[in-house]
Amino acid sequence: MSVRIREVGPRDGLQVESPLPITARAGLIDGLAGAGLRDIEAVSFVSPNAVPAMADPAGVMAAVNRLPDVTYWGLVPNTRGAELALEAGMDALTITVSACPVYNEKNVRRTIDASMKEVGQIVAEAGSLPVDLILSCVFGSPYTGDEPTRTTPKLMVQARDLGVSRFTLADTTGMATPGRVARILDEVGTEVGLHLHDTRGTALANAWEAIRQGVRKFDAALGGLGGSPFAEGAGDNLATEDLVHMLDDAGLTTDVDLRALLDLGGRLRDMVGHELKSAIAVHGPRRVGT
Amino acid sequence: MSVRIREVGPRDGLQVESPLPITARAGLIDGLAGAGLRDIEAVSFVSPNAVPAMADPAGVMAAVNRLPDVTYWGLVPNTRGAELALEAGMDALTITVSACPVYNEKNVRRTIDASMKEVGQIVAEAGSLPVDLILSCVFGSPYTGDEPTRTTPKLMVQARDLGVSRFTLADTTGMATPGRVARILDEVGTEVGLHLHDTRGTALANAWEAIRQGVRKFDAALGGLGGSPFAEGAGDNLATEDLVHMLDDAGLTTDVDLRALLDLGGRLRDMVGHELKSAIAVHGPRRVGT
Repeated sequence: MSVRIREVGPRDGLQVESPLPITARAGLIDGLAGAGLRDIEAVSFVSPNAVPAMADPAGVMAAVNRLPDVTYWGLVPNTRGAELALEAGMDALTITVSACPVYNEKNVRRTIDASMKEVGQIVAEAGSLPVDLILSCVFGSPYTGDEPTRTTPKLMVQARDLGVSRFTLADTTGMATPGRVARILDEVGTEVGLHLHDTRGTALANAWEAIRQGVRKFDAALGGLGGSPFAEGAGDNLATEDLVHMLDDAGLTTDVDLRALLDLGGRLRDMVGHELKSAIAVHGPRRVGT
Repeated sequence: MSVRIREVGPRDGLQVESPLPITARAGLIDGLAGAGLRDIEAVSFVSPNAVPAMADPAGVMAAVNRLPDVTYWGLVPNTRGAELALEAGMDALTITVSACPVYNEKNVRRTIDASMKEVGQIVAEAGSLPVDLILSCVFGSPYTGDEPTRTTPKLMVQARDLGVSRFTLADTTGMATPGRVARILDEVGTEVGLHLHDTRGTALANAWEAIRQGVRKFDAALGGLGGSPFAEGAGDNLATEDLVHMLDDAGLTTDVDLRALLDLGGRLRDMVGHELKSAIAVHGPRRVGT
């Protein structure tokens, strides 16, 4: 059985760090591809004024040594972003809309309806490129509680009508628990991807429950870096090392080389200038030599 | 569905901290009982020279305001410890034998066989009191790798012949993963309790898998305090708050009041003089007010 991990460290991880040089960002992306990651959210086409660490996505992509079997994803906030992403030669696009109206307003200064309309335009603009709609705050929001969980299935129907065929449910502020994951998946099915945060220590448990249910797509960030710059309470991403370590020991295939990933994590730590949050980065894999 | 948590903070948690006054230790135990914990590993009858923080267990128990519906467990290292535990009026006894011969040697300076013989004597000494045999390093050992996992079922058979009827499988150095938990439970059944450590961030995922399989008994320590003073790589215990938070949100009953537990955690932090490792203690429950 095979699990597909989309590495979001270069985007969701680095966006909350001090800006890194283009060569460092491209080097991280190449390192991730070298470690076996086959889906990498590499850049974001948001305004560099809003998120300075994500400046010059086209420059980053030009510096990447692109591998033919890797899908390089770019996050696009609007149709203008989608145009730029197409020009930069992205393989696939992610768009984020929050299932929480208050968070959506804070994040992109729009109502959910206005964001959804833009999603339709981006899908049209993208043509044959895959577009993944990431619904944020699905598992709860610090602003509207559990309301986003209830409205998510309806938003997915609305998005399907607009041409969206891929979905990722995001636990933006770390409010998911495995029981809650089970209940949502019962409702929306297991074709979705999950984007988990470890704020409350539940990311691996949530991922495990999802795997038990049949989910096979996960976002994760090397070293557990990340969190939204716009969401109160947004904590660390699920660490790629920790996910791979758990999956490896369960005999689930990821194509990711844990040793290579840990080496790259060491380089990432030096780049960002602080310790990583990954338990495996800090304590090592369960067996020396594995 | 109801899950029984045995709180081991006063024993496994405090044993690696600087010694606290008797009144503080008894106050912690009373606070845990007040928060709804119905099984509390309160003290250890090990030598105070080996583990100074566990000195004077009888004094602690005399200072505890005992509740009739709480089972106060005492860890006993040998028959002399069992005698002292009976004198101190413990309700139930825990004994630890490692499934890893090297770790057992380091922990109690005996072979596993010699320890098992003593287990038989303790069970005889204990009479009608419940005795729980905690097998340590079951999920892997830094010294002998995965060998303990393979020998555990045989050790359980041997212990049953000696009169042991309760078992707890301990992940002493945080080497369990949910896939591995599933495989061991398939072999030994789900009547066992689990004692999980969070060294590699997997404790909640392991607990969740065990719950999925039908395990209903877990050890946990307030604030995630703890770890063995004798095992290389032994990390934090599964935090009681984090376990209760996950179970509450899944609709599983624990009788524990999370708010009371978090308040007590604040007091524990002040007692030990450092931050707790519990994610819920640090970041709060998923919903304000829940």
